[in-house]
Amino acid sequence: MPNPTAAIIIIGNEILSGRTLDINTQYIAQKLSTVGIDLCETRTIPDRHDFIVDTIKPLKEKYTYIFTTGGIGPTHDDITSRAIADLFKVPLELNPDAYKIIHDFYASLKHELNEARIKMAYIPKGGRLIENPISGAPGFVIGNVYVMAGIPGIMQAMLGQILPTLNHGHPIQSKTIDLSIGESIIAKDLAVLQNKYPEIEMGSYPFKINDKHGTSLVLRSVDTTKLEEAYLELLKITEHIRPPVEAD
Amino acid sequence: MPNPTAAIIIIGNEILSGRTLDINTQYIAQKLSTVGIDLCETRTIPDRHDFIVDTIKPLKEKYTYIFTTGGIGPTHDDITSRAIADLFKVPLELNPDAYKIIHDFYASLKHELNEARIKMAYIPKGGRLIENPISGAPGFVIGNVYVMAGIPGIMQAMLGQILPTLNHGHPIQSKTIDLSIGESIIAKDLAVLQNKYPEIEMGSYPFKINDKHGTSLVLRSVDTTKLEEAYLELLKITEHIRPPVEAD
Repeated sequence: MPNPTAAIIIIGNEILSGRTLDINTQYIAQKLSTVGIDLCETRTIPDRHDFIVDTIKPLKEKYTYIFTTGGIGPTHDDITSRAIADLFKVPLELNPDAYKIIHDFYASLKHELNEARIKMAYIPKGGRLIENPISGAPGFVIGNVYVMAGIPGIMQAMLGQILPTLNHGHPIQSKTIDLSIGESIIAKDLAVLQNKYPEIEMGSYPFKINDKHGTSLVLRSVDTTKLEEAYLELLKITEHIRPPVEAD
Repeated sequence: MPNPTAAIIIIGNEILSGRTLDINTQYIAQKLSTVGIDLCETRTIPDRHDFIVDTIKPLKEKYTYIFTTGGIGPTHDDITSRAIADLFKVPLELNPDAYKIIHDFYASLKHELNEARIKMAYIPKGGRLIENPISGAPGFVIGNVYVMAGIPGIMQAMLGQILPTLNHGHPIQSKTIDLSIGESIIAKDLAVLQNKYPEIEMGSYPFKINDKHGTSLVLRSVDTTKLEEAYLELLKITEHIRPPVEAD
């Protein structure tokens, strides 16, 4: 069985304007990796209704899971829920459970409900809620689309609830060897090894620490036996060329 | 004249695995904003030939400019140049200028050329080089596709050369008002103002500093007169509700 697949859709003008650095993608990517779900691509798109619908429509057919972040807050620019409802051709309706959660949340702060807060209780019909322990207003899942908040702390809490409910695959294991040489020196040997182990994804990433250049060689695979074999072989090859950098 | 448009394509398995945080998108987004080029979407895709070709093919017709980062190094997993050549249906050939740059760069370090280093001198036929003052190997532009390195320092140096050569639009101006209240309190007034000023993009972004919640209201537009007008109106509205947070 191949691993389940996924795409992440980051919804937000604030990312496209450069105002905000997206740190949600890396967090989700790391978590998916640990449960054996292959992240195949990510997109960042604006808070525009048709753009959201047109982007997710083909992707939800292509991948096992779609994860979105952003656009489910109380203001006029939060249009993700409406777009997802239209994508699934269902009404966006007041969800009694979501209403109770939001009502109780604001009541506990001795704040009143207003129109903007009630807006966050509108969920596409048939959507199941994803709890938000931080600021009340829930996310939701409908079909294979998981709709989460954009604020990293809230997104992380939501993802924590989602992960155990997903089909897990073979976790992707990785092995890294850091070298104190530029990657063009190891390139040829690495290519030979890649040809020998096509089931291992081999990447080469230059780095610079304290003005010293080096290369991280990363091997990734779901096949732990082959991974260990390739890793030992690469260790031997690289020891021959140059000793690994000392950790400091 | 509407502003030129753009998409960013981040090419790299290391982003999709969560190993590396992508900081190139925000940097490019901010620079494009200052020269009036509208960033419409971004994608992160794997180091896979067909995925690269299939992703960029429709986007280069849709947007004025495409910016890619990653996959132009010396190792076997660096396949961006090959994919771009195939996308434009031109050969990937040894570029004499690129060869000279790479030759001279390694000669200056008293290093010899090897196959992996020479690989970086292969550029799609018709491509114009983008200088790399840091590690020699150039990027290139072909058609409206700008192919840059993935290492942030090198990408930034390359973008610095590209920007003056692009068609600039009206820089997007922005005004921000920080409030010490949650966004659901200002949501209704903000929506009314948005309806009054459809040419201004109004966003609302919750934040938390030292355990205090607040909201940043961001107005963005190329129309400085309307922007100032809307900003003054919003200042008045928000002063009435709650004084802005003191900067500290």
